[in-house]
Amino acid sequence: MKKIRVALAQINPTVGDLSGNVKKIVSNIRKAKKIKADIVAFPELVVTGYPPEDLLLKPQFIQENIDALHEIEAATRDIVAIVGFVDGNGGIFNAAAVISNGKLVDIYHKKCLPNYGVFDEFRYFRIGKRYPVYSLGGVNIGLNICEDIWHESSPVKVQAMSGAEIIININASPYHVGKASFRENLVMTRALQCNVVIVYVNMVGGQDELVFDGGSFVVDGKGAILAKGKQFSEELIAVDIDVQGAKFELSRKDKRELKTLMDKDESIDEIKVPSAFLRKQKPAIKRKRRVNLSSEEEVYRALLLGTKDYVTKNDFTGTVIGMSGGIDSALVATIAVDALGKENVRGLFMPSMYTSKESLEDAYGHAKNLGIKIITVPINKLFKVYTDTLSESFKGMEADITEENLQARIRGNILMAFSNKFGWLVLTTGNKSEMSVGYATLYGDMAGGFAVIKDVPKTMVYELCEWRNKKEGKDLIPERILWKEPTAELKPDQRDIDSLPPYPLLDPVLKAYVEEDRSFDEIMKMGCDIACAQSVISKVDRAEYKRRQAPPGIKITPRAFGKDRRFPITNRYKSY
Amino acid sequence: MKKIRVALAQINPTVGDLSGNVKKIVSNIRKAKKIKADIVAFPELVVTGYPPEDLLLKPQFIQENIDALHEIEAATRDIVAIVGFVDGNGGIFNAAAVISNGKLVDIYHKKCLPNYGVFDEFRYFRIGKRYPVYSLGGVNIGLNICEDIWHESSPVKVQAMSGAEIIININASPYHVGKASFRENLVMTRALQCNVVIVYVNMVGGQDELVFDGGSFVVDGKGAILAKGKQFSEELIAVDIDVQGAKFELSRKDKRELKTLMDKDESIDEIKVPSAFLRKQKPAIKRKRRVNLSSEEEVYRALLLGTKDYVTKNDFTGTVIGMSGGIDSALVATIAVDALGKENVRGLFMPSMYTSKESLEDAYGHAKNLGIKIITVPINKLFKVYTDTLSESFKGMEADITEENLQARIRGNILMAFSNKFGWLVLTTGNKSEMSVGYATLYGDMAGGFAVIKDVPKTMVYELCEWRNKKEGKDLIPERILWKEPTAELKPDQRDIDSLPPYPLLDPVLKAYVEEDRSFDEIMKMGCDIACAQSVISKVDRAEYKRRQAPPGIKITPRAFGKDRRFPITNRYKSY
Repeated sequence: MKKIRVALAQINPTVGDLSGNVKKIVSNIRKAKKIKADIVAFPELVVTGYPPEDLLLKPQFIQENIDALHEIEAATRDIVAIVGFVDGNGGIFNAAAVISNGKLVDIYHKKCLPNYGVFDEFRYFRIGKRYPVYSLGGVNIGLNICEDIWHESSPVKVQAMSGAEIIININASPYHVGKASFRENLVMTRALQCNVVIVYVNMVGGQDELVFDGGSFVVDGKGAILAKGKQFSEELIAVDIDVQGAKFELSRKDKRELKTLMDKDESIDEIKVPSAFLRKQKPAIKRKRRVNLSSEEEVYRALLLGTKDYVTKNDFTGTVIGMSGGIDSALVATIAVDALGKENVRGLFMPSMYTSKESLEDAYGHAKNLGIKIITVPINKLFKVYTDTLSESFKGMEADITEENLQARIRGNILMAFSNKFGWLVLTTGNKSEMSVGYATLYGDMAGGFAVIKDVPKTMVYELCEWRNKKEGKDLIPERILWKEPTAELKPDQRDIDSLPPYPLLDPVLKAYVEEDRSFDEIMKMGCDIACAQSVISKVDRAEYKRRQAPPGIKITPRAFGKDRRFPITNRYKSY
Repeated sequence: MKKIRVALAQINPTVGDLSGNVKKIVSNIRKAKKIKADIVAFPELVVTGYPPEDLLLKPQFIQENIDALHEIEAATRDIVAIVGFVDGNGGIFNAAAVISNGKLVDIYHKKCLPNYGVFDEFRYFRIGKRYPVYSLGGVNIGLNICEDIWHESSPVKVQAMSGAEIIININASPYHVGKASFRENLVMTRALQCNVVIVYVNMVGGQDELVFDGGSFVVDGKGAILAKGKQFSEELIAVDIDVQGAKFELSRKDKRELKTLMDKDESIDEIKVPSAFLRKQKPAIKRKRRVNLSSEEEVYRALLLGTKDYVTKNDFTGTVIGMSGGIDSALVATIAVDALGKENVRGLFMPSMYTSKESLEDAYGHAKNLGIKIITVPINKLFKVYTDTLSESFKGMEADITEENLQARIRGNILMAFSNKFGWLVLTTGNKSEMSVGYATLYGDMAGGFAVIKDVPKTMVYELCEWRNKKEGKDLIPERILWKEPTAELKPDQRDIDSLPPYPLLDPVLKAYVEEDRSFDEIMKMGCDIACAQSVISKVDRAEYKRRQAPPGIKITPRAFGKDRRFPITNRYKSY
């Protein structure tokens, strides 16, 4: 029986911040040494941040990331560090360095490159050809990266068959609702299949539209969770792993199977890692038990982290939000205050002649509850001057969507003027249901730097507000905001329901069409009548041009808009 | 000696328009039969249009594209048609159907999947495993798709070694300046290497940011061009090809080489195509000689086609352009009129207190030359009401970029109001130099549906205007527009040169940084001083958030903004 102490450094790097990321890595190596870890493992591409996108096409960037990696070496006296970085020149690899005692011992190259959803790894990386197994004081460790663990005939299997008893799998795995438990089940299955301990290290933090949720964990060959990190915050998780330390003997059948799993130009490499420092005597680590978050809390915290990191990593401090008294802006303002503190959030209330007294009361009431400053900037006079200015050109024509959009665009301009004058980031307030069907004004309510709840369906907006109020133990968000009828207040007596199906009907149809690529027949079977389904689908298709000009926002569903769903604008396909 | 007549159907499909595309294909098969062609070849994915992007993830779409393919079969009595479509269910392939005498004879699956630049083919397609060679009346023909021909150890080589004397390569190859001659040289080299005739069929038409430029051609095994189609328009090009008709005998060495070129699970298939109809007696086709276009004409015509197809395929008729009297809007208005006709283009002139008399004269003079209607909508009063409305909140603060942006945003709102009221598409007028450094106002001059010259550097804007005037034989664009100093006219005596290096210095630096990923040292060596290079690069990096909300525009350089350059917004990397 052998014992090894592994530290999972679940940290939050920033894309492109090579020196900042190295500092954070080195400081975590020091912490890992303090808690007497034998190995400390960092997330995928931790040196560059993930995803670096087309920075990867710049040879200077690749070279500087390699230089940055070498800066870490000196910190690894008496410990093994596993560090994700970009290897190569010309052809590059998504790689993991094994650094020990001040030296770069080996480099693993990721084999399974995701190129679906938000991922573009074939755009950048070549496929690894080696299955290294590292021998560390008699313990055999297989190392691989993220997607490598998702496939059954994967590096995990080859490495396990070649003697690995522990697999370290480093990740930058983006969040969507339910992903954490999905991941745990998947990794558990893989551990059982291959009878290995799997150390799953995930990144944490927000990067543009993605949130990496952490939640790193260790599962043994019987499928039991040995340790588990927090979701949505940095943590250094330590775990003691007991293994047999016995070299696996391959049967002929195994050898034959290995051959079928591997390409002709691939190799299994056994590599000794210097390990004189293996700490034999140490008090055991206490095992932390964590309860999984409810789905509302999970989503809410993803939105907090995504907002906080977008704002701070882009060096904004202040934000400004158009508060209409409606539920969407109420949720965004609440998230912003929870993420950034009330001193960094301002509300603008921009009433027109269609704004109700209730809207004013609710916006101000909510701002008061949050403790944020709210300013009123009326738009009536501006709207009048616009219509006067255009009256000659529009003579004899009825008021229509033009005038509605003008109001929204005046508000957009005012928000942007505050943004320009004070350096505040405008947080937009549109939800996924609106973004799907284009129930939003381009350059109007869509104007801003970050669209916090862009991927949150309207029905979930209600759920999150209710959850937040419940957590507060009182109506942080005024109760009326939760039950009054949704309206854009851009013309007299306007209601969302005059333009759209009720949200509890709309949202499942949108999910089926946008996220699940269901056929028209399947959508019909959901109990939606033909006219309704046709109208929703054609609205979604036609709104693509708007979405293309929308600000980024946080992915929380299995398929968000943005690089997760790449749709042509020019598109004559009709599924109905 | 055998003779075969091949027709290259260089047509313009529309993405998603399955029935429209099928109609166009069938009509071209009929035309090909009339000119007694033995084979007619259509572009890559002609049934779906290219690129269908995430439509490919919809099983219903894949099935309907297969149904659409079958509708073509009946039209192929007495002719062979090569038709690009999507094959498979679940795992799908970028495929080419060989249809003859009413039957689907075989299907080729593309092997080399581009996943760089604007391409995402690994996101959708699996890799083909077969190298079919079709025997048609004793003539052996290899068939492959686009990228398949770009690599030296490619399907072309395997097919040629297996006896193919003619290679038909079907394409949806997007345009950038100089690509046509690059392509010709590449295909010529491949033809010489493999001693085969290559029939290169390209798509034509605009699709969102891409223009397919056509220019299909046929090159023989000695590298001579046998026929060549027009660039930027549909054409059915016919050519008579003489071949030996002799089956290639493979030496042992060849067999060994073939083995190294192929994966273990790949196969070479020889397939007989029914060809009783081969037309033995027919008058020879006249060979058309075409001169390559100048680079100005090539770019100009790409912009015309891209604009025309975006407008018409999205069912717009009218367009509206903010005409400032400056050169960018002058070029866009000229392109719009050339592409759509003067009756489908309107100008808006929106003067402020900073607008010069010359701007007014030039905008109106140009509109008169173009024969388009131009309307003046002054923005002074609106601007005054905005500043009044904000005066309380901005008390004690100096005028700055806020007030400049407000003017641009008022103009954006007015343009969008005309768009909403009359259904006209707003064409924006920003050039690539501005888009690169962020010298543009989000929701202001960037507001609109299509950014015609978004990928045209400012220096090229001048060249295109000069070329267009020269072609007209007079100053269609008033001469003063070409020589007066560029200014945004958003504050007194403003000049572009106060904020940016002169364009003849700026544009090469932008090309080096944005299109060529040059390092800071390399850019320094271009004769740019440190401060200037740092300022330009940091401006480009910081403007990513603006570009993310920009309308689509036509790619004419090797690397455009949009899906051609995928950059993080949150990005702390500094190359300087």
